[in-house]
Amino acid sequence: MWTRLLDRFLRRLVQHGSLSVTLPDGETRRYGDGAAPEVTVVLHDPALPRQLVLDPDVALGEAYMDARLTIGRDDINGLLALAMSNIQAGHAGAWQTLLAALRDRLRILVQFNPAGRSQRNVAHHYDLSGALYDLFLDADRQYSCAYFRSPEDTLEKAQAQKKAHIAAKLCLRPGMTVLDIGCGWGGMALTLARDYGVQVLGVTLSHEQLAMARERAKSAGLDGQVRFELMDYRAVTGAFDRVVSVGMFEHVGAPHFRAYFRTLRERLAPDGLALVHTIGRSTPPGATSRWMTKYVFPGGYIPAMSEVMAAVEKEGLVPCDVEVWRLHYAETLRHWHQRFIDNIDKARALYDDRFCRMWRFYLAASEESFRHAGQCVFQFQLAHKVDAAPVTRDYLHADPMQTGAVAQLPRKAAE
Amino acid sequence: MWTRLLDRFLRRLVQHGSLSVTLPDGETRRYGDGAAPEVTVVLHDPALPRQLVLDPDVALGEAYMDARLTIGRDDINGLLALAMSNIQAGHAGAWQTLLAALRDRLRILVQFNPAGRSQRNVAHHYDLSGALYDLFLDADRQYSCAYFRSPEDTLEKAQAQKKAHIAAKLCLRPGMTVLDIGCGWGGMALTLARDYGVQVLGVTLSHEQLAMARERAKSAGLDGQVRFELMDYRAVTGAFDRVVSVGMFEHVGAPHFRAYFRTLRERLAPDGLALVHTIGRSTPPGATSRWMTKYVFPGGYIPAMSEVMAAVEKEGLVPCDVEVWRLHYAETLRHWHQRFIDNIDKARALYDDRFCRMWRFYLAASEESFRHAGQCVFQFQLAHKVDAAPVTRDYLHADPMQTGAVAQLPRKAAE
Repeated sequence: MWTRLLDRFLRRLVQHGSLSVTLPDGETRRYGDGAAPEVTVVLHDPALPRQLVLDPDVALGEAYMDARLTIGRDDINGLLALAMSNIQAGHAGAWQTLLAALRDRLRILVQFNPAGRSQRNVAHHYDLSGALYDLFLDADRQYSCAYFRSPEDTLEKAQAQKKAHIAAKLCLRPGMTVLDIGCGWGGMALTLARDYGVQVLGVTLSHEQLAMARERAKSAGLDGQVRFELMDYRAVTGAFDRVVSVGMFEHVGAPHFRAYFRTLRERLAPDGLALVHTIGRSTPPGATSRWMTKYVFPGGYIPAMSEVMAAVEKEGLVPCDVEVWRLHYAETLRHWHQRFIDNIDKARALYDDRFCRMWRFYLAASEESFRHAGQCVFQFQLAHKVDAAPVTRDYLHADPMQTGAVAQLPRKAAE
Repeated sequence: MWTRLLDRFLRRLVQHGSLSVTLPDGETRRYGDGAAPEVTVVLHDPALPRQLVLDPDVALGEAYMDARLTIGRDDINGLLALAMSNIQAGHAGAWQTLLAALRDRLRILVQFNPAGRSQRNVAHHYDLSGALYDLFLDADRQYSCAYFRSPEDTLEKAQAQKKAHIAAKLCLRPGMTVLDIGCGWGGMALTLARDYGVQVLGVTLSHEQLAMARERAKSAGLDGQVRFELMDYRAVTGAFDRVVSVGMFEHVGAPHFRAYFRTLRERLAPDGLALVHTIGRSTPPGATSRWMTKYVFPGGYIPAMSEVMAAVEKEGLVPCDVEVWRLHYAETLRHWHQRFIDNIDKARALYDDRFCRMWRFYLAASEESFRHAGQCVFQFQLAHKVDAAPVTRDYLHADPMQTGAVAQLPRKAAE
């Protein structure tokens, strides 16, 4: 019965592209319109048809991790692109839509992130061996979306451009105080201090990140200018000229959006400017992939712009600009995945095969979500006052030597 | 009793700035912290204290229109800036907050805009004598926010920059088809046709606007390229490479947001790009000024970004960019008001004194709403596909002669 239901499900789903599925009994079935390239999948476990029908999101990822499902040429991206583009085109079918809606009702429960649980959620991911992150991130350990001004940009260049673009939006001047909420391994804080002469407090909930960030500040001679603390964002006190938060809002959870922006409002000086950079969705609010929250980001939630803005409006912050990065994270993840594959032997020396397959599935699924499932990155520039940021966005893009833009541009600190 | 309540209301409200109020019995009272300049108001009608306490929004505007309330040096802007900045600072008091909340509950009723009522609402405002609009708009009759790249820009230059900025966001190529929803007197449609070589269909519900737009297309020799129709936006058929809608969404009303974006989605070609330019609020969804909907824009509603985006998400459109213009409309309205005052004798020859006072109150109240009450302008760039617009916003701001930006820039049609 489950094989028949899976067959019906796939027949309905795969209307564009080609999929061949070899069932546990050895029979092969073909789906789609025959367009190349064909993605081939082999199911090795008789339990899979039932699991895939009842909970495809979790079952597919788990089966791949366990090698109970294998993909021709190990082309995870091809399989996920095929599935996501057909779902996005509305071919999921009534049954899957109903299942997704039911799960959506329960999503609030998994996003309840008081300080203690936030700490455990963070440890789950960011306290993994630092050596793992060296296998796929750039040298500065920028673990968020890079900014590709040209498709030829290297990952290193694109990450430097991301930091410069965010710094431009913060309109920094030497001597300003900056709060970095979710500072990671310190790359953003150290760059802002070094290149713009500001004083930074970076907070993280990861012991591993904290230790490395402090170490880097010391060896860069920036420990007088940058302070890192193990601290929940809700526990920070004082006022800051600027607040920056990159790739942290994804971990906040919808029930805490108001508290997040209240903190931001309270920490931001009256003339202050803040920049919140987060993964988002262009689709309506709804469940985040349960495989992703189970294995990769517990407590995580990908917000829609309408949800973020409802909280921003209620907290009385002025949105000065909202930038939407649509394909930059797909490119970033493509680079990360390629580096991880290039270093797969080192990864296998650190973790077992199942972990490595899980990590590859995470990187591939994320990449394809940005290409085919409405995921994107939002940058919200926020303030208390309507005149806190320049009236046009020319200062973010203009050549500083051109007339007009100079006066509006933040001066870069003399190094 | 009402005089005592008004006194209490004003004592609570005016905490910053200075206000002097002369009551109908000749007594003068002073409010605020004494900061210059003092705004002076004289109440000439014994009914005013009651009306101002029960419904300040409507009563103040009506009293000014009737000259039952006069302002020293006729400084409407000064009075409204004082009131709005204190309200924004949270000094309105519990009673006024309660009244506002009650009115807010009823707001859906006044935004029910089926095609027939939309037509009447539009006629109320836009079928006013064309001569009136010549007294305060620029020569192209741009009746929406201008774009001041420099504070020294003239209104004419800033309006031209607005059109160029929107055209850049549309990534036009010669021969493309463009739908202009709410085309006004045709300035945008004619500019796009002339400067970018596109084919435009402009729709309006105003007979006056239609007649003038057609006349202008003919005399510019663009009537082969631009077609204007008297048509509700929901009645348009066919697919267009681009959709543009400037200053029309304010008239849609929240109950019709889904229908608006559904129309936009259905009219937009698969690779299409759309640009919706609308007045917005940075405050949470709530009532639009009732004086404004009673006298100036019946059926109008100023949306919050969260409301707009909720509809955009549900209709499955991809937000490519959201620009927030914070002070451009205040500058635009300052220019319009000054031009209107400069032409006040001609205005009085067209309409009576009460109309002229109403119009000045409308322009002044709007200007101060952008400075002190969280009003702003949103530009939503929307598409079906994530790659419909360039991946960075450099093409909107870069010098086209610089490397890198050239390939992304829309080619300007050879004229």
